[in-house]
Parts: sequence; structure tokens; C-alpha cells
Amino acid sequence: MSLIQKSLKRVMKSTALAAAFALMATSASAAEKVYRLKLAETWGPNFPVFGDATKNMAEMAEKMSNGRLQIRIDSANKHKAPLGIFDMVKSGQYDLGHSGSYYWKGKVPNTLYFTSMPFGMTPSEQYAWFYHGGGMELMEQVYSPHNLLSFPGGNTDIQMGGWFQKEINSVEDLQGLKMRIPGFAGEVLAEVGAKPTNIAPGELYTSLERRTIDALEWVGPSLDLRMGFHKIAPFYYTGWHEPGSELQFLVNKRTWERLPADLQEILRVAMRTAAYDMYTQATHESGKNWVSMKSEYPDVQVKDFPPAVMKALREANDKLLAEHAAKDELAKEIQASQADYLQQVRSWTDISHRAYLNSQAQ
Amino acid sequence: MSLIQKSLKRVMKSTALAAAFALMATSASAAEKVYRLKLAETWGPNFPVFGDATKNMAEMAEKMSNGRLQIRIDSANKHKAPLGIFDMVKSGQYDLGHSGSYYWKGKVPNTLYFTSMPFGMTPSEQYAWFYHGGGMELMEQVYSPHNLLSFPGGNTDIQMGGWFQKEINSVEDLQGLKMRIPGFAGEVLAEVGAKPTNIAPGELYTSLERRTIDALEWVGPSLDLRMGFHKIAPFYYTGWHEPGSELQFLVNKRTWERLPADLQEILRVAMRTAAYDMYTQATHESGKNWVSMKSEYPDVQVKDFPPAVMKALREANDKLLAEHAAKDELAKEIQASQADYLQQVRSWTDISHRAYLNSQAQ
Repeated sequence: MSLIQKSLKRVMKSTALAAAFALMATSASAAEKVYRLKLAETWGPNFPVFGDATKNMAEMAEKMSNGRLQIRIDSANKHKAPLGIFDMVKSGQYDLGHSGSYYWKGKVPNTLYFTSMPFGMTPSEQYAWFYHGGGMELMEQVYSPHNLLSFPGGNTDIQMGGWFQKEINSVEDLQGLKMRIPGFAGEVLAEVGAKPTNIAPGELYTSLERRTIDALEWVGPSLDLRMGFHKIAPFYYTGWHEPGSELQFLVNKRTWERLPADLQEILRVAMRTAAYDMYTQATHESGKNWVSMKSEYPDVQVKDFPPAVMKALREANDKLLAEHAAKDELAKEIQASQADYLQQVRSWTDISHRAYLNSQAQ
Repeated sequence: MSLIQKSLKRVMKSTALAAAFALMATSASAAEKVYRLKLAETWGPNFPVFGDATKNMAEMAEKMSNGRLQIRIDSANKHKAPLGIFDMVKSGQYDLGHSGSYYWKGKVPNTLYFTSMPFGMTPSEQYAWFYHGGGMELMEQVYSPHNLLSFPGGNTDIQMGGWFQKEINSVEDLQGLKMRIPGFAGEVLAEVGAKPTNIAPGELYTSLERRTIDALEWVGPSLDLRMGFHKIAPFYYTGWHEPGSELQFLVNKRTWERLPADLQEILRVAMRTAAYDMYTQATHESGKNWVSMKSEYPDVQVKDFPPAVMKALREANDKLLAEHAAKDELAKEIQASQADYLQQVRSWTDISHRAYLNSQAQ
């Protein structure tokens, strides 16, 4: 209560008026109440692109709310649990999280479907699925039982297939190939005979340089440049396994419910814009960095996996998906929704983006 | 002033306290002040996709501001000046506008560059140019002298090359071809011998059916479906002339300056999100409608212009652009910015989107 309010109160003669004044003050302070939310992100501090998305989101929310919605961002160095975001937001230890849905597939298998699927949708196709094709509703079905809301959190753009020491000319070349490739894509590669391994990011460069591994995938030029892989591996393969990886904002449901309607909308729109903005930034950084890589290391060769390799990977992917669908009705439903939507939207992408880009490359 | 405030005031004994109270009331009412802005859009009422973008923007702004920012949308039936948006927002008759930058090229030639250019950037490439490649700053240089701010206003996705009654196999087939294609692309076609014409939207169907014109371009499946052209023209050509048409929000500078900082940010973010959202919606509608067209009229043939035709169009385009650049330093600067950025970003798009889409089409 301010000094003015205090002195006003002191001179009030009528009890009724004092009560009325108290009511006014309460209503004013409700409108002015500051909500301080805590966000935990999977990334370390100042992580490029991904970390910019959370900062952008928090800044928009604070400015739009005139300071009423303040979001403190804790990076992995602070909370020490990069892969604990789901649990920490579910329990309410954090109000918000920024991570990747497919990190939770060991805990809740159907979270797998909301980042990017091998042979799946490109970023703009997938946004259309989320917002117009039933994707948001399916994601809600998966997250709601865990006291969580999940929203798109920024797209990395199509991820590259990875850095390889040897050329891949046939399915045989994949046999025993030691590759750092985590998650579902790793399972697909294992299915065709490769040996997926997981190695801490800090050891990737040395492992690839010393041939402890034969190949690795990271993201794409936007984040690969600073890892330096282009200095030590001659082949950069085009993508198949994550054609539009969308990060995720998680919101604790009770946090959401105690926000007034205007701050809910501010938070929703800030997350939505930050996600789109990250895709735009990823596009920019990828172009800029790819030009740098090529100019510093002109011998880097971009390769497509041969059709026979793509066919084997696709068959392995389909087999694994069918196994998931057989075990779980909702998995089956999500897979069908994605497959149907992809067929619809890709028929358009083919006569627009694919046709245009091919015509310009001639 | 409320009844409570009035009765409070009546019993105030001290003049100093009354003054202090008046100050409080003023500051409270400033925070609660409702800003009512008027937006004029080029489109008719309930125009699909484009009109959804303005409604989406106004709804977000109203909800995020808790009703303090109210935007009334006047469609063309109301203001009767679909191509007068620039002037009406410049003069302050309207606070905001929603239109297309290239509509003003007759008035301010350099507005041409901020919608989409033939052989130019795709939507995500162009967003990267606007937000990270200097596009916004160049757009500001063009609009600022006219008391206007301009922001991206929603992308139609890549536009199709149009509906044709006859196949185009060579540059000769373009000689004398009567085609509805307005703007700069029409100038390019004229340069290679075609006869661009402008016809009111309501007469397009009949003109194409009766062969008054040989061809026309509209947008793409998202808006072409309801025009019915697929029922009367056998060839649907892929795009070259508007590879990512971005609509525009215009804001009167004085309106912008009198908004408090939080409402400026709410307006900025609402416009930005509505623009991205429109691109997502256009992707969705295009996929859905293209599937409908193909299922109702399976004989529609999608065609690419042959390389020789594309080459002639590109040469004509380059010639016209060089003429603009020779007359105007800023035009030259904008063209160079776009060309340099396109070269950088397309090197990435080629190894990501083009490579991926081609691999999936096999």
C-alpha cells in the first residue's frame, strides 16, 4: 500500500467509505499483480538459436504485460537436469519448460510424435498439422494426463543426415557403422545393421576425428559450424530422419489456470511467436553458416543417400512404427493422422516448393 | 469517474489529499484507457485466409490487452477504396491497414520489393531476410517518409504460375498470349511478347471459359478452388513470379507513437504472429484444396514451364530490374540486398528442402 493510500485511509471518517476504498485498492492491485514464473530449459546458458527462443519469449511476455508476467530462465548449468524438464514442470518445481518432446519417449512413448518423424513433415507442413490438422489436439491427449500443456517451441529446420568419414554407397556400407545418432532414428539405423551410440556432446569432435565413431548427426549448419565437424569429416549427408524438428514449451497446468485470461493469451502468443521466430532464425543461421563452411572448407561434399539406402531405412522405420501402433491405440491414431496429413500437404509442397526450387536450380 | 470515486471525493476534507487522490485516479485511468483503432483492409468482408489474418490479429490484440486495444476492421465494402489503403493510413483516416506492398509501386516505386519478386525468395527465406537480413530496415527507409510503418502481414505461400488453356512449349507460345497477370510480373510477360490484361475478379471465370483470355494467374489452390478455374482450364502451371507473397500491415506513425509501450509491443507481436499464422493457414488450405481439385477434376495437368521459357522470363525480369536500379540508388541497394541474401539462403535450402523433397518423391 502506497503512502498516498495510507494517508487517505487515515483521514477516512466513514467506515463504509473505507470499505469501498479497500475494494478499489484490491481490484487495482489484482490488475497490477506481478506473476513470476520459472522456466527450465534443456540447453546450457547462451545456447545459440534454442536459447534465443526462450529469451525472445520471456522478453515479449514481459513487455506485452507491462512487467506483470516475468519469466526467469534457468539453463542446464543451474537446474542440473537437462533431461528432467518433463518431471520438473509436471511436479510444479518449474512453471515452464523448453525442451524436445521426443526426449520423453522412454517415459511416455507417445511423446515421440511431436518433434519430427523420419520421412515426415517439413517445418511449414508440420505447423499446418499442429494448428489445422489435429496435431495440437493429439498432443493435448498425450500431455494432459501429466498435468502439462505442450506447445510448439521453435523449429531447427530440416536436420542434415550427418557427417560421415566414408561414403555410403549401399546398405552394406551401413553394417557395423558406428554412428552417434540418438532416439528413434538410432533405432531405425540399428534395424538396418548400423551401431548407433550415444556420446556426450563435448567428446563428439575427438571421437569423430580419431574414428572412434564413423559418423554422427548433430543438427545442421546453424549449430554444426561451431562444433567444427566440417574440418574433420569429408561427407555431409542430406536429411531423412528429422525433417522439421520442433522444440517444445511445457506449461504446468496449475500455473496456467491461475493466470488471468489476458496473461494466458500473452503467454500463448509469446510462445507461438518465439517458436516461429526460431524457425526463421534457424533458416538464417543455416544459410550464413553453410556459406562459411563451404568457403573455409571447399572440399566438403554434400551427398544424398542412394535410393536403395533410403528404401531400407524407410522399411525399417515403417516396421518400428507398426510395432508401436500395435501396442497402443493412441499411437495408431497419431500415426494415421500424421500419415494422412502428410499425404495431403505434400501433394501441394511438391507442386509448389519442390517444383520451384528445382526450376531455380537448373 | 465511478460512484465510489465521487462519494470518496465528497467527504475529502483536505485539499492536498483531494489532489493526491485525483492523481491516483488519473494514473489508474491511464492504465485502463481504451485505444480504439480502425483498420482498413483491401479485401472484401470474410475474404478467406487474408481476412482471417486481420481478424486473428485484432483478436489477439484485444485479448492480450484485456480490452485496452480494440481494432475495428473495415473491409472494402465499407471504405470503398481497396487500393487506397496506403493513402488512408498515411493521412490518419485509418490507423492501420492490411494490403500488399506492391500495390503502391505506381505511387512509390520501391514498395515493389516487399511482397515477392519473380525468381525470388520462398516464404521462410524471405522471413529470414526481413528479420535477419536487413529487409525490415530497407522497408522502413521506403515507408518512413510517408508517415508509415510497414510489417509483414501474412504469406500466401508460393503462388502458382496460373491456369492455361493451351500448353506452353516454347517462348513462341507466349507471343500474343492474353493473360490476366497484374503488376511487375505482367511487365515481365509483356517483355517476352505476351499481352497481359487486367480483368475484374468477378469476370475472370467467364473470360477464361469463353477464351477472351488464354490464361490467368490468381493465387494457388488456397484461393483458386472457389474461383472454379480448374473446371474450365486443363493446365495448371507451377510458379515463378511470386514465390512467397507476403501481405502487409501498415501503421500510421502518429497512431504508433501515441500508444503506450506495452500496447506497441502487443500490436507488434499480434501482427507478427498473425502473419506467420496466415502462412501456416495458406499451407493447410492449399493442401486441402489441391486434393479436392484433383479428386473432382482428375484430368487437371500440372506443368512446369520449359527451361527455355524460364530463361526468357528471367532475362526479361533482370532487364526490368536493371532499369529500376539505374534510376534509383535505394532500388539498387534493395535489389543487391535481396540478391545477396537469396544466394546465401538458397545454398542452404537446396541441401535441405530441395534435397529432402526430391528424395521423398522418388
